[in-house]
Amino acid sequence: MLNNNISTFIACDCEYKSAKTVIFGAPFDSTTSFRPGTRFGCSAMRSESFGIETYSPYQNRDLEDCAVMDSGDIELCIGDTEKVLAQIEDRTKSILKDGKRPFMIGGEHLVTLGAFRAAAEKYPDIHIVHFDAHADLREDYLGVKNSHACVLRRCWDIVGDDRIHQFGIRSGERAEFEFAKVHTDMHPFSLEDVYAVVKELDLAKKPVYFTLDLDVLDPSVFPGTGTPEAGGVMFEELRRAVTCVCSQLNIVGCDVNELSPHYDHSGISTAAACKIVREMLLAMEDNIA
Amino acid sequence: MLNNNISTFIACDCEYKSAKTVIFGAPFDSTTSFRPGTRFGCSAMRSESFGIETYSPYQNRDLEDCAVMDSGDIELCIGDTEKVLAQIEDRTKSILKDGKRPFMIGGEHLVTLGAFRAAAEKYPDIHIVHFDAHADLREDYLGVKNSHACVLRRCWDIVGDDRIHQFGIRSGERAEFEFAKVHTDMHPFSLEDVYAVVKELDLAKKPVYFTLDLDVLDPSVFPGTGTPEAGGVMFEELRRAVTCVCSQLNIVGCDVNELSPHYDHSGISTAAACKIVREMLLAMEDNIA
Amino acid sequence: MLNNNISTFIACDCEYKSAKTVIFGAPFDSTTSFRPGTRFGCSAMRSESFGIETYSPYQNRDLEDCAVMDSGDIELCIGDTEKVLAQIEDRTKSILKDGKRPFMIGGEHLVTLGAFRAAAEKYPDIHIVHFDAHADLREDYLGVKNSHACVLRRCWDIVGDDRIHQFGIRSGERAEFEFAKVHTDMHPFSLEDVYAVVKELDLAKKPVYFTLDLDVLDPSVFPGTGTPEAGGVMFEELRRAVTCVCSQLNIVGCDVNELSPHYDHSGISTAAACKIVREMLLAMEDNIA
Amino acid sequence: MLNNNISTFIACDCEYKSAKTVIFGAPFDSTTSFRPGTRFGCSAMRSESFGIETYSPYQNRDLEDCAVMDSGDIELCIGDTEKVLAQIEDRTKSILKDGKRPFMIGGEHLVTLGAFRAAAEKYPDIHIVHFDAHADLREDYLGVKNSHACVLRRCWDIVGDDRIHQFGIRSGERAEFEFAKVHTDMHPFSLEDVYAVVKELDLAKKPVYFTLDLDVLDPSVFPGTGTPEAGGVMFEELRRAVTCVCSQLNIVGCDVNELSPHYDHSGISTAAACKIVREMLLAMEDNIA
Amino acid sequence: MLNNNISTFIACDCEYKSAKTVIFGAPFDSTTSFRPGTRFGCSAMRSESFGIETYSPYQNRDLEDCAVMDSGDIELCIGDTEKVLAQIEDRTKSILKDGKRPFMIGGEHLVTLGAFRAAAEKYPDIHIVHFDAHADLREDYLGVKNSHACVLRRCWDIVGDDRIHQFGIRSGERAEFEFAKVHTDMHPFSLEDVYAVVKELDLAKKPVYFTLDLDVLDPSVFPGTGTPEAGGVMFEELRRAVTCVCSQLNIVGCDVNELSPHYDHSGISTAAACKIVREMLLAMEDNIA
Amino acid sequence: MLNNNISTFIACDCEYKSAKTVIFGAPFDSTTSFRPGTRFGCSAMRSESFGIETYSPYQNRDLEDCAVMDSGDIELCIGDTEKVLAQIEDRTKSILKDGKRPFMIGGEHLVTLGAFRAAAEKYPDIHIVHFDAHADLREDYLGVKNSHACVLRRCWDIVGDDRIHQFGIRSGERAEFEFAKVHTDMHPFSLEDVYAVVKELDLAKKPVYFTLDLDVLDPSVFPGTGTPEAGGVMFEELRRAVTCVCSQLNIVGCDVNELSPHYDHSGISTAAACKIVREMLLAMEDNIA
Repeated sequence: MLNNNISTFIACDCEYKSAKTVIFGAPFDSTTSFRPGTRFGCSAMRSESFGIETYSPYQNRDLEDCAVMDSGDIELCIGDTEKVLAQIEDRTKSILKDGKRPFMIGGEHLVTLGAFRAAAEKYPDIHIVHFDAHADLREDYLGVKNSHACVLRRCWDIVGDDRIHQFGIRSGERAEFEFAKVHTDMHPFSLEDVYAVVKELDLAKKPVYFTLDLDVLDPSVFPGTGTPEAGGVMFEELRRAVTCVCSQLNIVGCDVNELSPHYDHSGISTAAACKIVREMLLAMEDNIA
Repeated sequence: MLNNNISTFIACDCEYKSAKTVIFGAPFDSTTSFRPGTRFGCSAMRSESFGIETYSPYQNRDLEDCAVMDSGDIELCIGDTEKVLAQIEDRTKSILKDGKRPFMIGGEHLVTLGAFRAAAEKYPDIHIVHFDAHADLREDYLGVKNSHACVLRRCWDIVGDDRIHQFGIRSGERAEFEFAKVHTDMHPFSLEDVYAVVKELDLAKKPVYFTLDLDVLDPSVFPGTGTPEAGGVMFEELRRAVTCVCSQLNIVGCDVNELSPHYDHSGISTAAACKIVREMLLAMEDNIA
Repeated sequence: MLNNNISTFIACDCEYKSAKTVIFGAPFDSTTSFRPGTRFGCSAMRSESFGIETYSPYQNRDLEDCAVMDSGDIELCIGDTEKVLAQIEDRTKSILKDGKRPFMIGGEHLVTLGAFRAAAEKYPDIHIVHFDAHADLREDYLGVKNSHACVLRRCWDIVGDDRIHQFGIRSGERAEFEFAKVHTDMHPFSLEDVYAVVKELDLAKKPVYFTLDLDVLDPSVFPGTGTPEAGGVMFEELRRAVTCVCSQLNIVGCDVNELSPHYDHSGISTAAACKIVREMLLAMEDNIA
Repeated sequence: MLNNNISTFIACDCEYKSAKTVIFGAPFDSTTSFRPGTRFGCSAMRSESFGIETYSPYQNRDLEDCAVMDSGDIELCIGDTEKVLAQIEDRTKSILKDGKRPFMIGGEHLVTLGAFRAAAEKYPDIHIVHFDAHADLREDYLGVKNSHACVLRRCWDIVGDDRIHQFGIRSGERAEFEFAKVHTDMHPFSLEDVYAVVKELDLAKKPVYFTLDLDVLDPSVFPGTGTPEAGGVMFEELRRAVTCVCSQLNIVGCDVNELSPHYDHSGISTAAACKIVREMLLAMEDNIA
Repeated sequence: MLNNNISTFIACDCEYKSAKTVIFGAPFDSTTSFRPGTRFGCSAMRSESFGIETYSPYQNRDLEDCAVMDSGDIELCIGDTEKVLAQIEDRTKSILKDGKRPFMIGGEHLVTLGAFRAAAEKYPDIHIVHFDAHADLREDYLGVKNSHACVLRRCWDIVGDDRIHQFGIRSGERAEFEFAKVHTDMHPFSLEDVYAVVKELDLAKKPVYFTLDLDVLDPSVFPGTGTPEAGGVMFEELRRAVTCVCSQLNIVGCDVNELSPHYDHSGISTAAACKIVREMLLAMEDNIA
Repeated sequence: MLNNNISTFIACDCEYKSAKTVIFGAPFDSTTSFRPGTRFGCSAMRSESFGIETYSPYQNRDLEDCAVMDSGDIELCIGDTEKVLAQIEDRTKSILKDGKRPFMIGGEHLVTLGAFRAAAEKYPDIHIVHFDAHADLREDYLGVKNSHACVLRRCWDIVGDDRIHQFGIRSGERAEFEFAKVHTDMHPFSLEDVYAVVKELDLAKKPVYFTLDLDVLDPSVFPGTGTPEAGGVMFEELRRAVTCVCSQLNIVGCDVNELSPHYDHSGISTAAACKIVREMLLAMEDNIA
């Protein structure tokens, strides 16, 4: 009798060897400034993913036909931020080295920095597509530089100007919006410009890291997050945009973050997150029948 | 001193004799596969209905002017599915026999099967109008045929092809969507085709059973349900569609189901459900001044 | 060592002397007929306001540059409605006398009556702009005249016909809608007529009292309220309308009410309320650089 | 077909004519100073009473054998405290006049004043047995005399010294405890003195009004109340004490109050309240076989 | 890279071959009459078990030293009660056949019937030790015989008189208590008689099946259950009693059931359940160093 | 008009100059390994403290007569643990230097380390009295030494053997209990030994730092904490013990920590914490009339 309690995102039970995409969780939330709890995001998504179907009527594709492995969570050193980032970077590097696509589930948004370090090392001409309610472009937050509120600024430290494409941003300090005018490609308030930018990036055949902060969604659709910011996009707007990004671009790594299940009493945020992850995985898979 | 604790849906206190529509509750949820609790749906709707008005500014009609009786819940044999369906069928038959319109409040969606058996017996040329997030067309679910996930398939067993009109469907197995292509009239993702189909059915003067799974609504509007499925319709879209269905068609029976109040912490799902029931009742009433 | 525990709405820490707008809280909910709890609205907004930014990318303005003082809550005599209204009237009068704009945070909607009495005394030609889900035009509620359900009717007692402009109303008794046809300027269901009415009032250079019942928002966006009424406006629709009202009109007093934090488990209603208050304050401030 | 939706406390469906005890609800909470919501207490107890049994293994008695009628709630004028008290007094008088025992379910503790006025009029030598966490002996609360925090003081205004027996009190102002030393018979912190006092009152053959504020229970047992006060009695201690009071004394009227179901997320407070009401009803019934 | 997402009760990761005790989950709640949700009990206990330690200072033993395997949940046919019982019986039989001790985690209490059928077949002289708030001795419940409310009666059908030892019972119909007087060994209200009965059973060297309905605990300690019944035992009382039962007797099978995590908002019920399971596993293990 | 929104623990509004005890908050929870959220503990205690009275009938003392100042929260650098500890140490030093007693409210238990560093510097012969469910004696936790799970071990690093007196401990690794046997004075499971130890320490006239982890309470009494551990002490047991410690010993500094309000849905944990703080403040005050 074998233990059948292996817990993965629904249908992501491919062997590592044959997997093209490898999911891992990064249950970290120590720099969260307002309401912590995103550390529970990845495990909530795994268990609630069994409430959705593997089949997508939107794309007429099925996760059962995909080569995805969910490799579980990294056991992180809660309390030592730099060490945590190094652990994430290592895991990402190892997946990239094996020629597979890393798909990280957070955790708070700072986890992106660890994964992006690995991706930018392998792909020096990498671009970032960033969906978020918040600009995340502060130089520091209460004196701390490796904070969730600074994560895209830290990525900019690595790649510099004109490589970060931000969509849906509706909150930040004045200084962040002024920084964005000069240094990033910011499209605030909605996702309507995604399609044009994707076309350009596709023509340029750039490798792309896609980071999705789920709080880009309106809090009515996605209440389960640390810093709800009114006036976001509806589910369909996000679903269409992520499908476009993931099916049209060369996504060499990606992450989905900021689900905080303890603020998601009805479970609708977790259900929405699972459905978005499914659509992303299906859109990225090239050779489904 | 009389007991004044009679609990009905607001203003549905007509005598049985003069009632044209008779409400009853079917507090059943035993085949629910994910999160149970819809058994509390009908009693929650009764008590929370006093938070809405009897008057509708949309239709300029008032429930006080309608001939509706709320006859309370059936006391169901929890744990014996077939017996439960028989109890529901009996109650429906008895209302139909008296020339009144049965209006059932669930409970999980399987309860529709009991009521539909009675309606289809009286009206052999009956059609079904079905609003839902889920196709509910499986042949069986983990080996069980009388499951909420199979309820429209069981109705199809009775009436066959081209009699089931499905709207808003956005989730199911691949096999369900393939079945629908051949055997039902499915309009996935939205309610925009409702108006055209209603026009056809109206011309054909068909008797219609209307089954409304409230999870057709977006989970932001209706979080209180067992299986929230992101990407649904907004309240106004549903309100307009149910008003069209109920005022234009010959509704010989109907049900509203899948409210699960324990996942509705803020009460907004129950309030939305009550308002939809009010609008349905008002739209079905022909001879209000 | 000074106590730094002064609790204000974010960045509203101007001295009274130099303040142009003065916030105060009215934590009252004793006439609430359905679900009480709005008494906690003002303190919840203060503490959660630190989850939003002071800067608005919509208006490119920052609360840090505004002359707003949050003067705290009035300590109200819970249980004696008329005395409570007198306390609110006194506080409003005193702010008006000092040439400042009162900005009250409720509490239930009845608090508007106290503040409006003071404003109407100083500005006899005052108009009211009223956003709400409910008409609030009853003559009495279960025999009580000073009830939240009658508050605009009590204001009408003071100013008479054609001075009350109502938007977004989607619930009430038949008699209220009939009263509105004759005595108020009602634009039910949406806020789309706000812009035309603002233009007229602006041309007429009328002093305006703006009362915002937050339940005009859809319950999906704003679940944390006593009487959720399905089918309301989305956040962006409200944000644009309040910005128009507050930037175009001569607002001599205003209030925001009906947040009930205990029904706001995820905090999204409080976050939305804080953001609307920020946008109102920014829009009303004339001389920001 | 009759409506079977009559909602009573479990098994309290006796006809008024033959009833010896008559339950009614007083859903009032307008003077609540901290967290409102006890208005929902009586309806919650009715619906949740079906989660307990009618039979008590403690007393070997069954509610099915008792002559109790639940006559429903009084429809109170929320917002007008004095009128509400008059409505309660009237209902109590009418029950007393018919030779039956009134059993009121609150609501907040102030409702006791209405019922006690009627009982004291009929029985001038009446005593009060009072279980509570709070002394409720203030002369006024923020200037309001008819407040829940003053209710026993208002009863003392009627009957004077040495007629009020208080048990379990563990919170109040210093002035209240000093008042009690002179004017009431207070036994703070526990219920251990109940048995001796009951013996005395029984010997004196005094008519007794029993008022039970459920927050005498420890908040771990009874979290669902407006003002939880740590350090209360456990369920068994209360069960034994109420059984003694109700079986040994001549209870001419009684009430159970301060259940606030919205703070009772798990339902344990409501379940405890229902069980205590059952034990009280059984203990008061003389002639059960 | 191996998937490390195997989810077991903390430290119960022994290989099947060397395991002496084998845990499995039975996520079933379809006959629940009041509030469903125990189907989530076993998975909640697994994930929350990581909040407790593997070491017990009470017994000075450590789960790390035990030979326990958690073999995961059975995938049950929700909706077909008899089939579910057969699945549970099969799993139990297979574990017993391999000379190991089955340890089932529910689920509602009816699951005991499946496991007990297997145990009683192997050990015809088996006794049951039963801790519970409810007698569970009904002949049927609303006509259904295989109901959680009848489960000990169904066990009695198998083994007959004087084999069932019940402790802590404080709720039931009169008929159940009368049945118990004749047919079972019932010790109502507390666990104080456990020690004497254990001594007798130990002397008689009887094989024992131990079924623990966690609602024997007071609802203050264990709110997360379907039918909270006030007046139960405290945690320490239960811990001592289960330690006695599991260390002194020849436990050939056991189960722990009726945790309903959705009513356990603070998580204290799940934490208590996990600690009890740890103490049971440690007490049953004979040869820890 | 002055801002009256100064937020302090109830009645702790003394001027710094004349204060003998100075409260401050340390809203930190970044090393929390299980469920974060204690950062909200200090502000929750301030606002909910207005639900209790200033007068204690247990001690017949009133906070209104005490010289206590609540100086608010330290604005901590979330994400940089060592810097946070330094900030806490500085604040504590400054209070001690002014001859006042620091009273810190957490936050997670690690904050004790910062305050204790300052106290031990001033009082080299200091002892610690420690109430807790957990031993907190690990050398490191997942490689991190400054973790809440190691805080008493870090204090031991400073003062060495026989200076730490631990009570109520009921959870830990085997290694922690073995460490305690050699290096600390541990009294597991209850508080019954407190009185004897206090007598000894009093005779020895030792300066004492008192650290109270509120999870020493049973989770039924105190569910609102990150790591609920079943089997703790009841409120009265804790109240008596803290009163003894604070009135008998020379408390040169103290803290109360580990309240996590987001897991305290009913508010009973916060209410219990406030009452304990009141009793501690009253017991420590020498010269109340």
